[in-house]
Amino acid sequence: MAGNTFGKLFKLTTFGESHGAAIGGIIDGCPAGIKINLEKVQQDLNKRKPGQSAIVTQRKEPDTVEFYSGIFEGQTTGTPIGFVIKNANQKSKDYSHIKDTYRPSHADYTYDEKYGIRDYRGGGRSSARETASRVVGGAIAKQVIPNISFHAFTSSVGNISLDKNLETIDLNLIESNPVRCPDTAVAQRMEDYIKDIRSQGDTVGGTVQCVIKNVPKGLGEPVFDKLHAELGKAMLSINAVKGFEYGSGFEGTKMKGSEHNDLFNSDGSTTTNLSGGIQGGISNGMDIYFTVAFKPVATIMQKQPTINSQGLQVEMQGKGRHDPCVVPRAVPIVDAMAALVIADFYLQNKISKI
Amino acid sequence: MAGNTFGKLFKLTTFGESHGAAIGGIIDGCPAGIKINLEKVQQDLNKRKPGQSAIVTQRKEPDTVEFYSGIFEGQTTGTPIGFVIKNANQKSKDYSHIKDTYRPSHADYTYDEKYGIRDYRGGGRSSARETASRVVGGAIAKQVIPNISFHAFTSSVGNISLDKNLETIDLNLIESNPVRCPDTAVAQRMEDYIKDIRSQGDTVGGTVQCVIKNVPKGLGEPVFDKLHAELGKAMLSINAVKGFEYGSGFEGTKMKGSEHNDLFNSDGSTTTNLSGGIQGGISNGMDIYFTVAFKPVATIMQKQPTINSQGLQVEMQGKGRHDPCVVPRAVPIVDAMAALVIADFYLQNKISKI
Amino acid sequence: MAGNTFGKLFKLTTFGESHGAAIGGIIDGCPAGIKINLEKVQQDLNKRKPGQSAIVTQRKEPDTVEFYSGIFEGQTTGTPIGFVIKNANQKSKDYSHIKDTYRPSHADYTYDEKYGIRDYRGGGRSSARETASRVVGGAIAKQVIPNISFHAFTSSVGNISLDKNLETIDLNLIESNPVRCPDTAVAQRMEDYIKDIRSQGDTVGGTVQCVIKNVPKGLGEPVFDKLHAELGKAMLSINAVKGFEYGSGFEGTKMKGSEHNDLFNSDGSTTTNLSGGIQGGISNGMDIYFTVAFKPVATIMQKQPTINSQGLQVEMQGKGRHDPCVVPRAVPIVDAMAALVIADFYLQNKISKI
Amino acid sequence: MAGNTFGKLFKLTTFGESHGAAIGGIIDGCPAGIKINLEKVQQDLNKRKPGQSAIVTQRKEPDTVEFYSGIFEGQTTGTPIGFVIKNANQKSKDYSHIKDTYRPSHADYTYDEKYGIRDYRGGGRSSARETASRVVGGAIAKQVIPNISFHAFTSSVGNISLDKNLETIDLNLIESNPVRCPDTAVAQRMEDYIKDIRSQGDTVGGTVQCVIKNVPKGLGEPVFDKLHAELGKAMLSINAVKGFEYGSGFEGTKMKGSEHNDLFNSDGSTTTNLSGGIQGGISNGMDIYFTVAFKPVATIMQKQPTINSQGLQVEMQGKGRHDPCVVPRAVPIVDAMAALVIADFYLQNKISKI
Repeated sequence: MAGNTFGKLFKLTTFGESHGAAIGGIIDGCPAGIKINLEKVQQDLNKRKPGQSAIVTQRKEPDTVEFYSGIFEGQTTGTPIGFVIKNANQKSKDYSHIKDTYRPSHADYTYDEKYGIRDYRGGGRSSARETASRVVGGAIAKQVIPNISFHAFTSSVGNISLDKNLETIDLNLIESNPVRCPDTAVAQRMEDYIKDIRSQGDTVGGTVQCVIKNVPKGLGEPVFDKLHAELGKAMLSINAVKGFEYGSGFEGTKMKGSEHNDLFNSDGSTTTNLSGGIQGGISNGMDIYFTVAFKPVATIMQKQPTINSQGLQVEMQGKGRHDPCVVPRAVPIVDAMAALVIADFYLQNKISKI
Repeated sequence: MAGNTFGKLFKLTTFGESHGAAIGGIIDGCPAGIKINLEKVQQDLNKRKPGQSAIVTQRKEPDTVEFYSGIFEGQTTGTPIGFVIKNANQKSKDYSHIKDTYRPSHADYTYDEKYGIRDYRGGGRSSARETASRVVGGAIAKQVIPNISFHAFTSSVGNISLDKNLETIDLNLIESNPVRCPDTAVAQRMEDYIKDIRSQGDTVGGTVQCVIKNVPKGLGEPVFDKLHAELGKAMLSINAVKGFEYGSGFEGTKMKGSEHNDLFNSDGSTTTNLSGGIQGGISNGMDIYFTVAFKPVATIMQKQPTINSQGLQVEMQGKGRHDPCVVPRAVPIVDAMAALVIADFYLQNKISKI
Repeated sequence: MAGNTFGKLFKLTTFGESHGAAIGGIIDGCPAGIKINLEKVQQDLNKRKPGQSAIVTQRKEPDTVEFYSGIFEGQTTGTPIGFVIKNANQKSKDYSHIKDTYRPSHADYTYDEKYGIRDYRGGGRSSARETASRVVGGAIAKQVIPNISFHAFTSSVGNISLDKNLETIDLNLIESNPVRCPDTAVAQRMEDYIKDIRSQGDTVGGTVQCVIKNVPKGLGEPVFDKLHAELGKAMLSINAVKGFEYGSGFEGTKMKGSEHNDLFNSDGSTTTNLSGGIQGGISNGMDIYFTVAFKPVATIMQKQPTINSQGLQVEMQGKGRHDPCVVPRAVPIVDAMAALVIADFYLQNKISKI
Repeated sequence: MAGNTFGKLFKLTTFGESHGAAIGGIIDGCPAGIKINLEKVQQDLNKRKPGQSAIVTQRKEPDTVEFYSGIFEGQTTGTPIGFVIKNANQKSKDYSHIKDTYRPSHADYTYDEKYGIRDYRGGGRSSARETASRVVGGAIAKQVIPNISFHAFTSSVGNISLDKNLETIDLNLIESNPVRCPDTAVAQRMEDYIKDIRSQGDTVGGTVQCVIKNVPKGLGEPVFDKLHAELGKAMLSINAVKGFEYGSGFEGTKMKGSEHNDLFNSDGSTTTNLSGGIQGGISNGMDIYFTVAFKPVATIMQKQPTINSQGLQVEMQGKGRHDPCVVPRAVPIVDAMAALVIADFYLQNKISKI
């Protein structure tokens, strides 16, 4: 297995299991001379952190990142940035019940089939805890491209969705509520629904939408490494993601070309933006936007029939501390992955023409 | 630009513009000793070929592939497989009108912004003609994994969709009609609609669904190179694609965990398959299925306002030979890209444990 | 096998066997807007071409390169550059005697062991004919970095060596004789020796030295991709190469630090250049120079005992048209590989700091 | 800079500066189910450790490696192996004199030119301290291929060389003396010479030879990733290396083909081994052997003229704790890098044919 590196020039490689000693990573390819604000890194981590509100998992992890290299006197030096997040709260006993039992719709079974061995504690490597390292990588990436801003938010929870045109959304409201939905009323309904779901011992899915503003023209590397293709891969690599669409997305398939084409203004901007800021796999300077689908968390606090490693039918019930809805904590992860993609293409584009 | 290679072990690198001398590619990493049926390669190409039916572009291209290396006495030798498809019918004059004019929602503008120069003839590198090389690569990939079968089909055109459960679809009907929809009645409605759209000088989008059968357990490389993440990237890299979902997809976001979880049978198979054959980014042996969204083709035979390279407003109308709906010809491309992904992961998985 | 790509940003992928239909390659990652002089490419190919003088193989190959993509109206477009060199003179009958017999110190045996099959005609993929594609790649690379010049030359043939200090060598003399040794008298001795060796049906080794002038400071990517490490890999990947040294090389191991250190002038240049233009894996602006060791060609026109694929002892004698000494034709290949390395690092260095 | 990863399938990525908080790395692509003996890892580290004998630097570093992931209940799990080595003894004050001054033949100047900033403490990333992470990677690699053994040793120090045929060397003697030369008498002369050199405040170079035994046939990926090309790159990437040769090496250039060819025995082995166990870039099952040239350490305890970052001439004298001869401590590094190369090709070869 060698799938733990993301990016071609700005590269993040991560390691770590949910209940090992630590998780962490190495960022290689970060240009030298970037001023790094370490507080901003920690702030992003805090948005992803368990225990931050009443509607997320209550696992207690300080998620404090330590940087070991690559930053000197407040600046990047061009050498690899190694970092570690210690696992503080490893309640391994919570997971002994899954040592030989495969949780439905989890990765337990497939990891065992693939590797013949798995660290079963808390899902091991398949745990979403791994995404904390991505948030660190994304937080550094953002500082490489400070003029570009990333605005992910919760766009639906179950059947409750924010049906608003992008232009009418006040992105400043995203962090105003624990759901991270930039509409106070809708956010409240989502929050209530999540609490209701949790009280049932159940979970629910949702979607995260993301807008990226101020992207320079020219990012993306056709034909295989189109900008939206890498964004899609980045999002689909996040735990629990089932779908990705950008611009007009699936709705656009129902349209006619005469309705769908974005007509040009004289300055190269377009009057509409059904292209989602990307044409031919390359950014055109308009806002990039896309939506990511998250399935309901597989671990529920209800009894379910399942099998163990001997293929025998057993019954199990989720224990431990889990999110009833993964979407609010997924918001900073979507931002982070988007930042990794854009920073990488930003660097790649430096040599498109010379 | 270095985005013209797909795959990590089974690697396809392509070259070629729509109206250059030829397109082609190199397949590197194909294991030795694979018996190659060259007719099957040509058959796949013929499914993608222009001029094959009344509802696709009437550009005439024989699309005959020539192999130059890597196959000896009917077998692969482990050395790179070089191939070329000559461009026979290069009506370059059809495209002189776009030399200095940017077609709306095309890649003309972004290529110029990125590279400062573009081969404007027929869209150059951004033309879907490039996908012929992908079909060749996919056709070889399929022969590396002969037990695995790929079944892409047209699942919707505009608002006309095949609303059938996967189990009830007769996949043998896919090639029974020019739309490649495995339901004769729905296919006829789609065909009529496409003809109607064409008579308007317009275009329409649609979706392609794909089922992959007999995938071994264990394919996919977490955490970044999850099986569905690479599938998603592969599909999103195809011209005109706007979205990708697998398994329960976007609909799954509305479900509860208690509804969504796939319960196990004793043999490790599952009673339902909302996971779409992939759990934790690794295949679990169930059918893999996904849906790909294609926007309407941007080139329409209607007058549109646009700008030229000086930023002046001009009016233009599509010329040349174009598809009113890209979906029927996209079907073999989706199959090809899926085969490239699966063959690559098949090889990668050979060393997951030793 | 997936070892047919060289470079990270400026990438050359090659295909082709000695006696297949064609050899060729794809250059991906060449920046847009580079003016390409196609005659210079052919000139480099002609230096490597068989039959160019009395002391090289008399195989007749025009080695005419055809470019299929990536160059438009005389300039690179940023898209992949596909090219093909047809194999004109495929005297396959010359090689039937090695179909089942392993030539000593050739790749016949190891290819069979690795792949279980091999194209035995003329050595197939293991033939040095493959290097023609490298020369094409290198010739394009040189035009990306026109200010940097490459000066490979024959520095020894057998025991006859050019024992001159680099500063005293007149690099303009390299092409003045068929041996490519920039000293007329020494070149004549080498030429006579090669003819003598050929008349014995034997072969001989030699060395090629290369000087690269006007390299900007800062090229090379520690810690693994040091400039000299990639140069070494590039050279060692050429057929028949057994060794590589740069700067003071093996002789430098006998020196003391006080003798070996290159002291600085005020402008950062150094009074001596035992470092060979590279310190800590990064170019320092001084001339880069290195030496490459080539073994004697394995195919000799004398009877040798060997084994066949059944392990039986048989006797064989070289047939066909071979070089008695590979070094004169290796000179343009060394230049080409050096240019590929430098162009790649030149592009990589564009993002060391931003 | 993104040159901190080595390997294609078995991949080591390292981070860390000489005087930062820690160095470390991530091994990605290690197959699951490998039993890991952690003591052997530490033993290899101890061979590289400073302060181990009277003839090496007296910097005190315990060099204790901590593994954070990827190993569970004594076995690899197929997930990335993250590890850290804390920097215990960071006498940063020793290095304040080089903050603005460029040490001759060091990387100070080139790092500043490339990155515009450098961690000057102890050479920062350019310090050979980084190689400790390579030793960890190599120690894990060896356990993936337990039947293959690596035997690097000191073959020369200055003009004192071990002029012995490989077959007559007793490899068991390597660790019998601090120089790591498998001949007691020669080792003693080398040791005396190193002490003499140190007393002069000077340094000296040398060579390391390495024999790899029991390598399976078929390793290496032509044409660019030939086995010896990657070995060469691996060795040249080690600090202070100036040259690499394998098999007959530079001496072989003086031979005739009739002398140099290795004739076959019936079992495919050869009567001689001038090929050094590699033919056409692929292992043939014979012993692989090669020699690596190390220049004298640049830091000497004598006064030298140099320049500072303003280009002014200054005088400097080495301080701190440095090796008078790098070769004895380079021996385990050569072994480690060789193991990384062989393990990687071992995995790659799993898919040469299927």
